[in-house]
Amino acid sequence: MRLSTGFVRASGYARKVRRVLFAIAGGKVPPQEIVRAAGELNRFIFERFQEMGVEKGDVVRISVPFAISEGGIRWDYDGLKIEVYRKSEEEKLAKAMEEVEEREKALEEAIAELSTLAQKLRELSEEIEEKIERIKAEHTGLKLRFEE
Amino acid sequence: MRLSTGFVRASGYARKVRRVLFAIAGGKVPPQEIVRAAGELNRFIFERFQEMGVEKGDVVRISVPFAISEGGIRWDYDGLKIEVYRKSEEEKLAKAMEEVEEREKALEEAIAELSTLAQKLRELSEEIEEKIERIKAEHTGLKLRFEE
Amino acid sequence: MRLSTGFVRASGYARKVRRVLFAIAGGKVPPQEIVRAAGELNRFIFERFQEMGVEKGDVVRISVPFAISEGGIRWDYDGLKIEVYRKSEEEKLAKAMEEVEEREKALEEAIAELSTLAQKLRELSEEIEEKIERIKAEHTGLKLRFEE
Amino acid sequence: MRLSTGFVRASGYARKVRRVLFAIAGGKVPPQEIVRAAGELNRFIFERFQEMGVEKGDVVRISVPFAISEGGIRWDYDGLKIEVYRKSEEEKLAKAMEEVEEREKALEEAIAELSTLAQKLRELSEEIEEKIERIKAEHTGLKLRFEE
Repeated sequence: MRLSTGFVRASGYARKVRRVLFAIAGGKVPPQEIVRAAGELNRFIFERFQEMGVEKGDVVRISVPFAISEGGIRWDYDGLKIEVYRKSEEEKLAKAMEEVEEREKALEEAIAELSTLAQKLRELSEEIEEKIERIKAEHTGLKLRFEE
Repeated sequence: MRLSTGFVRASGYARKVRRVLFAIAGGKVPPQEIVRAAGELNRFIFERFQEMGVEKGDVVRISVPFAISEGGIRWDYDGLKIEVYRKSEEEKLAKAMEEVEEREKALEEAIAELSTLAQKLRELSEEIEEKIERIKAEHTGLKLRFEE
Repeated sequence: MRLSTGFVRASGYARKVRRVLFAIAGGKVPPQEIVRAAGELNRFIFERFQEMGVEKGDVVRISVPFAISEGGIRWDYDGLKIEVYRKSEEEKLAKAMEEVEEREKALEEAIAELSTLAQKLRELSEEIEEKIERIKAEHTGLKLRFEE
Repeated sequence: MRLSTGFVRASGYARKVRRVLFAIAGGKVPPQEIVRAAGELNRFIFERFQEMGVEKGDVVRISVPFAISEGGIRWDYDGLKIEVYRKSEEEKLAKAMEEVEEREKALEEAIAELSTLAQKLRELSEEIEEKIERIKAEHTGLKLRFEE
């Protein structure tokens, strides 16, 4: 298997790696392993970036083969390919990817708010279920959840 | 401590014992223990009822002392008091308690339906939360629940 | 049609009338009309109680014929029947119905809390739906609710 | 005020116009007017595209001034600016924007599923509230929603 980031600003490569990995390996390995493997790869890429003098406004495209075995992800670093497009040379590309990054941040905020609401929803649902269980116990002869 | 059923039709004594016990011992011992203890007492009372020839339309009033120790309920059977009011002698009382029992059944049905809805609600809430977690993972750089 | 309260403490007759009326006429006339009609009947009964010197601890049993026409409830006051059982003469019955009233109050409190939670739930659901509509509008090309 | 799409594939300009307009005019005019105004502008742009021979894989950047008056959006078509970057000449830019479009479609699907769940949630919440109102009416003396 192969992870490909597509074009992305250097400043956003780490999040892109992680997201793409979730999309392609999501159901196959536990989320903790995806977070770990993305972190490992991202540290490796970060060092290459420093050696190459990549700046955060530059656009990059990264691909790397990997294997899944025993519930774990193993990167084949020999097959890692990093393309770099300097902001000074590819102005429109750099600007376009900057815009993409901005929009992703706006989406992120909206999803974060939604996530907070969803957590409140789950808590409220549990509270409602608990209260009904208590009404069942104290006002009816109905079986309780743990008796079913 | 003392459990008192108040007036209740013989046919409904077991549920009444259980409900009253939940109301007075609910927070103090685990629900499993309440169910167990109510069951134990109810079997004991049932045998007394058979010896006394109690019929399901008769009205009874039961009280019994108990102690809570080490998370368990211990009945003091020596202190058990059972009053029986025969349907033939206390017609209005018997009729009134029969009406009470009927209404309790109607309430029970309504609560059972509500309980089903509450369970659906919790499942739906979990589904919504899961889907938002997946959107977070695949479309944003937000931390996932297990990372927080 | 005929409304019958069954046995009930005089102190609780009004609520009983209303509940029974909701149970038998609930789907047939609007709730506002049930509330109105119950209120009208209850004022009439209240005056009879005063004439008869009924006390709140006495047990009563009331029945009255009624007709539904044009979405409204019309009481047939000529057919009204009120039985009164004095607390002093029917001690056990009076005590039993007092217990019933106490339990109903406990149930009422639990349902009131549940009702508050259900209202919060609806508000939260609406908030979640609104937020998702905004995400749809600002981050996707999906149709909005009003466009469907 | 000025609407700017930033870089976007010609195939996705219409959705981009609409989204950007929701983001900047969302609270100020009714959603119906935003949908209408975006539609009007998009038809106008579409004709320009045809005149210019723009293909869906080309990348464009559009900006146009507008005014809000009396709850309506008025485009200043004289100020409309359309830049076109041909796919054949700006290969990397075109490829990058194609990738963006693909990701947006994946997001769209996820949000559509979430939206369906949110609708189910609201319906279920209403059902729960209704059922509790019925329990209030038939089993308690609590005020109903319309009485408060």
